[in-house]
Amino acid sequence: MSLAIVALSGGMDSCVTASIARREGHELALLHVCYGQLTEARERLAFEQIADYYGVPPGRRLVVPMQALKLIGGSSLTDPVIPLEKGDLGRSGIPLTYVPFRNAHLLAACVSWAEVIKARRIYIGAVEGDASGYPDCRESFLRAFETAANEGTRPETNIAIHTPLIDKTKAEIVKIGMSIDAPLRLTWSCYCSETLACGLCDSCLLRLRGFEQAGFADPIEYLSGDQG
Amino acid sequence: MSLAIVALSGGMDSCVTASIARREGHELALLHVCYGQLTEARERLAFEQIADYYGVPPGRRLVVPMQALKLIGGSSLTDPVIPLEKGDLGRSGIPLTYVPFRNAHLLAACVSWAEVIKARRIYIGAVEGDASGYPDCRESFLRAFETAANEGTRPETNIAIHTPLIDKTKAEIVKIGMSIDAPLRLTWSCYCSETLACGLCDSCLLRLRGFEQAGFADPIEYLSGDQG
Repeated sequence: MSLAIVALSGGMDSCVTASIARREGHELALLHVCYGQLTEARERLAFEQIADYYGVPPGRRLVVPMQALKLIGGSSLTDPVIPLEKGDLGRSGIPLTYVPFRNAHLLAACVSWAEVIKARRIYIGAVEGDASGYPDCRESFLRAFETAANEGTRPETNIAIHTPLIDKTKAEIVKIGMSIDAPLRLTWSCYCSETLACGLCDSCLLRLRGFEQAGFADPIEYLSGDQG
Repeated sequence: MSLAIVALSGGMDSCVTASIARREGHELALLHVCYGQLTEARERLAFEQIADYYGVPPGRRLVVPMQALKLIGGSSLTDPVIPLEKGDLGRSGIPLTYVPFRNAHLLAACVSWAEVIKARRIYIGAVEGDASGYPDCRESFLRAFETAANEGTRPETNIAIHTPLIDKTKAEIVKIGMSIDAPLRLTWSCYCSETLACGLCDSCLLRLRGFEQAGFADPIEYLSGDQG
């Protein structure tokens, strides 16, 4: 089996992406970043549980503390001075939860690791359309970064960045996840709570709408909200 | 004055680059990364002393611990199992000191910071030609990363990556540095020693040859070697 690195935050999109990479026949190497976000510990737990589910050994798991993003701030996820807005899927523009250029840090770690362990594929669960409007989730960014990865590494290092969910809606991601038995019950999406998901933040609202539109029940528990 | 971020390792190239950015009329914001390299503490000292020299206030200095590169390894600078070779400027190929894709991590931090503090210029002292052959110092990589930076950030964030030394020889860099009074005595280049520079590693040899060819004496002290 060829080796594929999956950027696994522990959320639903990255979990489905890992399941797709496995289905496509790759041995998984899972990378997770801790960047001082509010729900860091809970996301880490989701990462480990999903890694356990896929039987990924310790040497194929990499947890990277990434202090730069917390030190730099500029996001309600990393700077306590910026308030975490109540969820509102009708809001336009780039939300305050955008962590400036975060996916570049994440992908830089994936590429460095790929170069060392000789993986040629990186999978990332970025979603461009039906999501929060983060600029670092755009296909154009990911393709530009792929070019940079191949210009900035050894000649024999050839990296392809796979984005199987880039044009999917949340409802489609739920359907794909259910159809391939992705362990969605182990995932964590909530931006603000670490015990039960709040059901009120943008991330919970997007997830809940996705399950509702797909016609499935979300297997995780919520504190409150419109999850019905 | 407009704000420019300079990636300042504390070596000669980044010091001259900071001096150029200042000469070009910019207010400096200096970013330094600690990634578990052998001479981390000494490089940090050089960074702080150069920042002091230019009167850069604490809020415009950012020191970023970057554990990913140490955890990933793959370089004699970060992995004690890989031996640090004795300097040999005639060696061909990519040396063992290459830290896989390091400049992408460094530039990702610069771009995130630039987006938050609204700087439009990033200066990096990468040298493509007369240097160690690191793939992440190539102009083609830096231009590709610049494209990725602008695709992956807010529409109003416009980043230019300046590489004033990209096509210079070490001797030319010494001459430029001397002509604009860059504080070269405060810089640190040695890969393996933190007290006096060894004079024997690739980085010392490149530096010493540069000073010799430029016709200047290197203002720092060496333990041994051919510095004459």
